[in-house]
Amino acid sequence: MAKKIKKILAVTGIRSEYDILFPVIDSLRKHKSFQVQLVVCGAHLSDWHGDTLKDIESDKFDVVEKIDYLLMTNRKTQRAKGIGNLISSLTQTVDRIKPDFILYVGDREESIACSIVANYMNVLAVHIGGGDSVYGNADDPIRFACSELAHVHFTTSQQYADNLIKIGEEPRRVFFSGNPALKNIKDVPSISKKEISKKLDFNLNKYAVIIKHPLSSSKEESYYQMKTTLEAVGEFTKERNIEAVGIFPNTDPGSYDILRAIKEEESNSMKFFKNLPRNIFVNLIRHASLLIGNSSMGILEAPYYKLPVINVGDRQLGRLNAGNVKFVNYDKKIIKSAMEEAIFNSTYIEKIKSLKNPYGGDDAHERIVEVLENLNLEDKTWYIKQKVF
Amino acid sequence: MAKKIKKILAVTGIRSEYDILFPVIDSLRKHKSFQVQLVVCGAHLSDWHGDTLKDIESDKFDVVEKIDYLLMTNRKTQRAKGIGNLISSLTQTVDRIKPDFILYVGDREESIACSIVANYMNVLAVHIGGGDSVYGNADDPIRFACSELAHVHFTTSQQYADNLIKIGEEPRRVFFSGNPALKNIKDVPSISKKEISKKLDFNLNKYAVIIKHPLSSSKEESYYQMKTTLEAVGEFTKERNIEAVGIFPNTDPGSYDILRAIKEEESNSMKFFKNLPRNIFVNLIRHASLLIGNSSMGILEAPYYKLPVINVGDRQLGRLNAGNVKFVNYDKKIIKSAMEEAIFNSTYIEKIKSLKNPYGGDDAHERIVEVLENLNLEDKTWYIKQKVF
Amino acid sequence: MAKKIKKILAVTGIRSEYDILFPVIDSLRKHKSFQVQLVVCGAHLSDWHGDTLKDIESDKFDVVEKIDYLLMTNRKTQRAKGIGNLISSLTQTVDRIKPDFILYVGDREESIACSIVANYMNVLAVHIGGGDSVYGNADDPIRFACSELAHVHFTTSQQYADNLIKIGEEPRRVFFSGNPALKNIKDVPSISKKEISKKLDFNLNKYAVIIKHPLSSSKEESYYQMKTTLEAVGEFTKERNIEAVGIFPNTDPGSYDILRAIKEEESNSMKFFKNLPRNIFVNLIRHASLLIGNSSMGILEAPYYKLPVINVGDRQLGRLNAGNVKFVNYDKKIIKSAMEEAIFNSTYIEKIKSLKNPYGGDDAHERIVEVLENLNLEDKTWYIKQKVF
Amino acid sequence: MAKKIKKILAVTGIRSEYDILFPVIDSLRKHKSFQVQLVVCGAHLSDWHGDTLKDIESDKFDVVEKIDYLLMTNRKTQRAKGIGNLISSLTQTVDRIKPDFILYVGDREESIACSIVANYMNVLAVHIGGGDSVYGNADDPIRFACSELAHVHFTTSQQYADNLIKIGEEPRRVFFSGNPALKNIKDVPSISKKEISKKLDFNLNKYAVIIKHPLSSSKEESYYQMKTTLEAVGEFTKERNIEAVGIFPNTDPGSYDILRAIKEEESNSMKFFKNLPRNIFVNLIRHASLLIGNSSMGILEAPYYKLPVINVGDRQLGRLNAGNVKFVNYDKKIIKSAMEEAIFNSTYIEKIKSLKNPYGGDDAHERIVEVLENLNLEDKTWYIKQKVF
Repeated sequence: MAKKIKKILAVTGIRSEYDILFPVIDSLRKHKSFQVQLVVCGAHLSDWHGDTLKDIESDKFDVVEKIDYLLMTNRKTQRAKGIGNLISSLTQTVDRIKPDFILYVGDREESIACSIVANYMNVLAVHIGGGDSVYGNADDPIRFACSELAHVHFTTSQQYADNLIKIGEEPRRVFFSGNPALKNIKDVPSISKKEISKKLDFNLNKYAVIIKHPLSSSKEESYYQMKTTLEAVGEFTKERNIEAVGIFPNTDPGSYDILRAIKEEESNSMKFFKNLPRNIFVNLIRHASLLIGNSSMGILEAPYYKLPVINVGDRQLGRLNAGNVKFVNYDKKIIKSAMEEAIFNSTYIEKIKSLKNPYGGDDAHERIVEVLENLNLEDKTWYIKQKVF
Repeated sequence: MAKKIKKILAVTGIRSEYDILFPVIDSLRKHKSFQVQLVVCGAHLSDWHGDTLKDIESDKFDVVEKIDYLLMTNRKTQRAKGIGNLISSLTQTVDRIKPDFILYVGDREESIACSIVANYMNVLAVHIGGGDSVYGNADDPIRFACSELAHVHFTTSQQYADNLIKIGEEPRRVFFSGNPALKNIKDVPSISKKEISKKLDFNLNKYAVIIKHPLSSSKEESYYQMKTTLEAVGEFTKERNIEAVGIFPNTDPGSYDILRAIKEEESNSMKFFKNLPRNIFVNLIRHASLLIGNSSMGILEAPYYKLPVINVGDRQLGRLNAGNVKFVNYDKKIIKSAMEEAIFNSTYIEKIKSLKNPYGGDDAHERIVEVLENLNLEDKTWYIKQKVF
Repeated sequence: MAKKIKKILAVTGIRSEYDILFPVIDSLRKHKSFQVQLVVCGAHLSDWHGDTLKDIESDKFDVVEKIDYLLMTNRKTQRAKGIGNLISSLTQTVDRIKPDFILYVGDREESIACSIVANYMNVLAVHIGGGDSVYGNADDPIRFACSELAHVHFTTSQQYADNLIKIGEEPRRVFFSGNPALKNIKDVPSISKKEISKKLDFNLNKYAVIIKHPLSSSKEESYYQMKTTLEAVGEFTKERNIEAVGIFPNTDPGSYDILRAIKEEESNSMKFFKNLPRNIFVNLIRHASLLIGNSSMGILEAPYYKLPVINVGDRQLGRLNAGNVKFVNYDKKIIKSAMEEAIFNSTYIEKIKSLKNPYGGDDAHERIVEVLENLNLEDKTWYIKQKVF
Repeated sequence: MAKKIKKILAVTGIRSEYDILFPVIDSLRKHKSFQVQLVVCGAHLSDWHGDTLKDIESDKFDVVEKIDYLLMTNRKTQRAKGIGNLISSLTQTVDRIKPDFILYVGDREESIACSIVANYMNVLAVHIGGGDSVYGNADDPIRFACSELAHVHFTTSQQYADNLIKIGEEPRRVFFSGNPALKNIKDVPSISKKEISKKLDFNLNKYAVIIKHPLSSSKEESYYQMKTTLEAVGEFTKERNIEAVGIFPNTDPGSYDILRAIKEEESNSMKFFKNLPRNIFVNLIRHASLLIGNSSMGILEAPYYKLPVINVGDRQLGRLNAGNVKFVNYDKKIIKSAMEEAIFNSTYIEKIKSLKNPYGGDDAHERIVEVLENLNLEDKTWYIKQKVF
């Protein structure tokens, strides 16, 4: 009997989600057992965030729905109301497509919306990135709420898989795959520092990369926090004659305030870009001396690059630190001294070069494809979750 | 310094939620430290479900918003799309009211919507009824997802509180209060069987009460399952010369099919009512010989009444059984023989009369009021959850 | 050069809309110049309204989206909030399908939603049924609002086409097609009164048909109005030994109250049905002696059947009366005397048999297909409306 | 008997709407017969559009709801989906507040949403700004659709009032009030050119003001059209040694592209501002030599200032031209020669100084207050519209 093709509906709302999904859905679509369809939503559809729909289209995925749900406001209401709209819209898509799996990542609006829709529409929810013990931000619990609702889990570290077992998830549903985004890094062809400088119209020698997002729990301080960070980085670039390249923040409330600080602090030695093509971005990181800010990349991907990271503020607290991340407060002196160490202290740099990466190799996608291929949809127990304590 | 009044926004969507909330919000509003406001939504606003808004209004609560979100469809889309609409609407309410706490119960549309809105709007989520180890239904995981997002938990049994600790909730957030609905039972004045018979226009001597809801995971079988159950009950009432009184199901997909079976099977010895006032309902249960169906009342409240329960089918599986609940399959013979035992076997009846109720006494509301009174809102750590493994 | 296939997206929310659309979209899909796709929504997806999606599916149309938007409430909020949800959902569909035309009828939630979505999505709006000079109901103006937004108009009478010219619509956009639903009547094969009696399990000799909908402007009186009407009809059936067959009302606020009156007044001589298959329904009307209530059918279709109509109350006021419609108030005596005349006064009956039908023949669909076939989509002036005074 | 206070719910979504509403609601709240409440939504709540909520709050109105509905996307879906969300949210507000009137202006998302909600919620819709014979843009018909649904109309010119009579509106509902925004202009205290220069940090001598919005019917050309316009203005400012001050566009699709052109073309002689306080803005216009772009201000307000206007492109076509507006195409030469005439040709300037303003004086608000005061809410015929042909 011919095996039934499994229908995967992958959902992506922002570049950082797509980067993790890409290696997985790219493998799945090349595999004869799967049909892959994509829902593109949120920041992907916003020109203010670089209209990254274009990148997805040029990757030639089958985009079966575009869902505008991101609200143009900097108020706290933005995310909750956005989730409401997304759930309503996505239910319509799932009802039409009738996928076997909904595939999604992380802890954002898309993640909780997918979890809820899958649960009530009787579709298996496949969640990448559960079990992270991060805390300090009011929306961290969303990640664990997603895990409670997901039917299959792929985690980026063994420790995170263990966490899911601890909360009573049935072990057969939990898999340590590693971080799929690492594959992108490997696949991107080398571009020289010179070429990047040309593309960005910004002469790079020794430089730091800045990625900093707002925290919903301290939206009010977003401006001040970014301002302090950028003053420190700006001064350091001038004093030590290096450069800094920044990327615009995500869409969360507070992002507008961060953009305001960026506008004020940009200078000849510190330039910001709304969004960069993946090949430029990966090579930018490859040649960088430091990543500074509070992006999850510092935790999850920088170990693969053996890159020193300075995490300013409370975001990412509690996550598994490979040893490359230094947590600092909003204090210019401390930030600058951490930069000095990370960029110019050769002992420190050597230590980080020799660290072991707990976030897997560049084959996470293979593990995920294998699990989904072998999962027997006829076995209805996959649909009925049961706590194991 | 005068203590700040704490603003409580309680959310109720269906009679069964309101019955649990009532003793709590009634105590809170009588307490000088609190201001209680109510959001009434869902089935409360549906004439098809008895328009129970009227009961809430006659209880004189301050209803600050009415949210219509329940969709008139029997399709699987109903609940997910409804949650989306509810989240959007409720965000608007919370933004306007700016409560200190959002108070809600259980595992329904309201529960997950409140959890999400509270989380993103930076309001403390107070959840009653977490930690239940129920399984067998695709929407059971919603209850645990709510617990992941809630900031304060009140559980109906000690075992359920322990479960929340096991999933890593900080112990200071977890309280075993017992089931608040038990207070209602105590408070309702006695009405004789004769009087009830008159009010219902149905002569009651020895009788069973039927409450049966659809399961989203087996919506397709809703009609057949109800049909089988009612055939068994109907035959038994005639053979043994007793009566059966039924209540209409909740609003979930499949409810329409259940109503269809009811319409076909109603008879002189088995009558159904859309909804009953609390005082009638409680006395109906007090005088009953059996509760049959799959209502959570059988698990959570029947032990307080010392009432035998027959749970037909998989709903409520895994929950803490005080010993009064017998689980049976959709088999007419087995159902009828279980009825024989529960109603006419005096040894069995005596055994149940002597069981110990693990769901607390009739003072759960006092425990809840006390905890909320003492909770210091200035302590910002209440807003930032952290897993404890 | 091959001519481009024109993509038609037809939208239907309730049986009465589908009956008008059917002959048109059935002709269009058989025509080589068109591709027809269907959005099915609202009451079609409600079991409470007979789940008429099944009929559409058995007609084998290409249903590209199902939109649940109908709210389960009897409150005034129902329609406005429903329209909001429908607009959001339908925008997503139109963005995905990219039709050349959106085709819809009448003055209901679907009508105004389609008008708005078409207008902002730059799709030509084709509206059937504009220009009716009906008044007396708060939602009548919706019909003219739809006409202001529609790019092509097909009216059911010449007078209504003239009305559209009067409000400044460009004449080239306005076509008198007649009422497309008349074609259904012609096409339905004959079924004898006996056979119908058997199918309905109701012995019919001489009988009236009752169709009565609520008015949003007098929702509060819906129960009383239906009660009075049914008391009159019920008494008359008994006194004059005839039968009455009723159909359930539409979904508007007040419908629940109408259903309540129906439940109370149903009798051996007056039976109600939720919904009837088209072939049964048409033959039921063919053999009927009278249509009573306030359905637009009395105005728009009954003249084709040469059927006497009693319109109780203000709905349909101001519409073009072919002469077969008698308007009466909620007065039992007057209703009964109007029934006596319509059913037993042979002079009156003869007069109606000889009336001229101003609502066209049974070829409206041909006119519509012809216009849409010849409309040149390259001519961008079709997209830019301009008032002509 | 004490007269009932009339409850007015005014709805504003963007600065241009608020400017028209302000004199009216400011008069109403000072009047003992009225209670005024405000819904603030859309662009008012967007930092990207200057967060003008702050201005409304400093005017001390009673803001009873804030509705985020504006989607952060530049796609065509933005407005339709936004209207859907706004209708759902606003229905909730109206259900809660139960106003006697909903007061709104113009032809934007708020206008059609208010019209629909009022109509179904049985509240009188008071529309300011109907009857304009504008065409050329796909969303112009929205204005007339609003008029079909509104119960009371206030127009900005006598000609527009006549248009409403032509479409069959009952004359008793139609009032020529003039443009309420003119009152703002009168009330704003003088600020010298010098002071403005200081506040804007831009030295102004002789200058043009630029306000240009996207057209939904030609969204694709938004960038090119703005680019051409700005190139012409930029060159002219340099050649003739004058300045140009621009204001950011509204939120419609295409606005992102306009912002892109602005970013590229800003120069030492042409500066743009996101938003200006009313007192600055009015004085900026008072001292200006020209308004260029396609703002409705050029038609509706510039005659009051006796200010020459160049309208580039098709927006505003068909509207009543006081004689001060010159329509030109996207042609740099033609734009520059029109600028030469408007700024430096003294005969032309004199001609405009002597024109008669057909848009009323600065007392429109008084007329509106008077009509609403005298309108008898007990007369239920106000709620039932009827076409008069």
